[in-house]
Amino acid sequence: MTTLEQQALEYHAAGQRGKVAIQVTKPVGSQTDLSLAYSPGVAAPCMEINRQPSKAYEYTAKGNLVGVITNGTAVLGLGDIGALAGKPVMEGKAVLFKKFAGIDAFDIEIDETDPDKLVEIIAALHPTFGGINLEDIKAPECFYVERRLRERLSIPVFHDDQHGTAIVVGAGLLNALELTGRDISLAKVVCSGAGAAAMACLDMIVDLGVRRENVYVCDSRGVLTTARTLSEEKRAWAQDTAAATLSEVIGMADVFLGLSGPGLLSQDDVRKMAARPIVFALANPEPELRPELVREAAPDAIIATGRSDYPNQINNALCFPYLFRAALDSGARGINQEMKRACVQALAALARGADGFGPGAIVPGLLDKRLLGGVTPRIAAAAWDSGVASRQLDPAAYRLQLEALGKTLL
Amino acid sequence: MTTLEQQALEYHAAGQRGKVAIQVTKPVGSQTDLSLAYSPGVAAPCMEINRQPSKAYEYTAKGNLVGVITNGTAVLGLGDIGALAGKPVMEGKAVLFKKFAGIDAFDIEIDETDPDKLVEIIAALHPTFGGINLEDIKAPECFYVERRLRERLSIPVFHDDQHGTAIVVGAGLLNALELTGRDISLAKVVCSGAGAAAMACLDMIVDLGVRRENVYVCDSRGVLTTARTLSEEKRAWAQDTAAATLSEVIGMADVFLGLSGPGLLSQDDVRKMAARPIVFALANPEPELRPELVREAAPDAIIATGRSDYPNQINNALCFPYLFRAALDSGARGINQEMKRACVQALAALARGADGFGPGAIVPGLLDKRLLGGVTPRIAAAAWDSGVASRQLDPAAYRLQLEALGKTLL
Repeated sequence: MTTLEQQALEYHAAGQRGKVAIQVTKPVGSQTDLSLAYSPGVAAPCMEINRQPSKAYEYTAKGNLVGVITNGTAVLGLGDIGALAGKPVMEGKAVLFKKFAGIDAFDIEIDETDPDKLVEIIAALHPTFGGINLEDIKAPECFYVERRLRERLSIPVFHDDQHGTAIVVGAGLLNALELTGRDISLAKVVCSGAGAAAMACLDMIVDLGVRRENVYVCDSRGVLTTARTLSEEKRAWAQDTAAATLSEVIGMADVFLGLSGPGLLSQDDVRKMAARPIVFALANPEPELRPELVREAAPDAIIATGRSDYPNQINNALCFPYLFRAALDSGARGINQEMKRACVQALAALARGADGFGPGAIVPGLLDKRLLGGVTPRIAAAAWDSGVASRQLDPAAYRLQLEALGKTLL
Repeated sequence: MTTLEQQALEYHAAGQRGKVAIQVTKPVGSQTDLSLAYSPGVAAPCMEINRQPSKAYEYTAKGNLVGVITNGTAVLGLGDIGALAGKPVMEGKAVLFKKFAGIDAFDIEIDETDPDKLVEIIAALHPTFGGINLEDIKAPECFYVERRLRERLSIPVFHDDQHGTAIVVGAGLLNALELTGRDISLAKVVCSGAGAAAMACLDMIVDLGVRRENVYVCDSRGVLTTARTLSEEKRAWAQDTAAATLSEVIGMADVFLGLSGPGLLSQDDVRKMAARPIVFALANPEPELRPELVREAAPDAIIATGRSDYPNQINNALCFPYLFRAALDSGARGINQEMKRACVQALAALARGADGFGPGAIVPGLLDKRLLGGVTPRIAAAAWDSGVASRQLDPAAYRLQLEALGKTLL
């Protein structure tokens, strides 16, 4: 066992076990308090909500409450370890929601792998939460589960492994392209991996301006080509090419996007890329190729990973707390493409506005205190402008409110 | 709107809305902390749990976490107001778990009325929680839902509306019988109401020594008799009698047990009862007959209600926090009859041991600080003795530990 593993086990077991607990937010020390918090007083808010369901946002914690929900079929890079074994990750996510955006999040681990049954279970939980963050559900089921839940529910539903990664990749890519003087519409992208996160990243970078015909995707069997029999999701990325392997398509690529596994990018591959290549080696915890080896092959590369011990960490925590904060505060019925795009732009701008902006700082750091006030109002504005929100927030006042909230959190 | 209702609405809406929030229990201020709480460190506890599921109790909050779960079909005395409108009650319950026993409880409101589907949903949530407290699910579905979940799950499942009420009624009845010098095996009991709580109370008092042939039960159509066509649950209480109404069977009754509704007991009924009658008028918030009117008809009656503004409040909060505390601490697979009976005896003993013990104090007060340390170890001992626990706790050391915990709570 490594030192990190040992420390992590001790960290989780120390004191009160796990990482989250319940906090009572109202006084309950006297008989009078109890008669308001519980019977008989509690009947009053119940009846108000029964008459007008939106009152749940006034009299309960629903409006600040997100369910972090998994079935444990694709936990981190660990795979299908089961719902129970995924609990430490879900608690960790709840911690990040609270610490970065003041959102209360319950972690919910569901012992169900059938996608239809999973949809039924999660849909039935809707009165509990103000939003649902799906987490670590394996592809391709995750696409179906998220789509069905978005159709059925009128609260935000967001599969973080897809869209969270896509947003931060999008922000990092915009800045890397700018730093290397590239036109996004001309950039050639080679993607290793065709899972949920990869598909969402590709959708996002195309939304941002990458041309679909400039994108080559490899799964475990090689390049997605029109000659292969492919799932519906993968077919959308098939190219009419004779190239069969990553090495055969990576020549003169501007961008390598790795959402696959260790060892799937070689130094030779990097040497075949265009000058000043952009290498996002995001396999976690072990990247497709270690940054020091990328650097050896291309000294002027811009490199990002999923790890905290290298520069340019592509971490979903840069976006999901602020997306949900904005969605909850603006009364958004969902998290749509406009809100995601606003988050990309705001994250990219925040990185560009930092003193250290450059090839080693294409995205903000996780603990950057400007994130809450800098990113959230732009997402809330996008929610309002795109017609999905029920409240228009004054950007300046909202920003001040968020900055005040931020001071209480970290 | 009454003053209480107005105050309750203001109480719920003030400051952070609702009554519960998430608290982070580990340090997360630095990049190092985050690398332990989340990726990459979090993979270590995940893999430990994957190898050995019981490790979830060591590395996550599961072992101190109870799900307070409802579908909102029988909320308080308000009826089928729906899952969302039940949320203030469930949050209130979570508050009581925390404040009385240091247990973290998530409230889960499920939009599903079909009992089989409800069982499927709740069963699938089992990895999330260390125990499940079912709440405010209407009869007769609640019997089925609880039974099926107990069969399927290896964590404690407890329908508080049935068993919580039964335990506190049992404790109060034992003391009322003692104070009036009655032999439990001779006591004649008339019960108004045949819902979930009534059935559980009747089972409990029979378990404690009341003879089944001395019990008469009335539902909305009158006395349960062998001449009527009855559900399976009710048939168990049918008597071969010509009496058709409560007034016709209450003559010389020692005990009235009301779990029905206001107005269902009259002063004339009380006058027909035996001397020093025991009147538990538990309909909430409005009893079957107000205590002052019972007293007018029988000045020496021992009277209990569900209300906090009269003496002898029969409140489930006297037992569920301690039952779950004991079950979690002893690693119990369920909450069995032996544990419930131990709770009855411990509550009765605690009331008898108080200075004010008498007809106006047959059960402890909700805020009695002796409850946690006084009741819980007896339940844990019963869990061990009955073979349902995985840990034997030293009673004296456990009591000290609970008393220390109690000082941090109220």
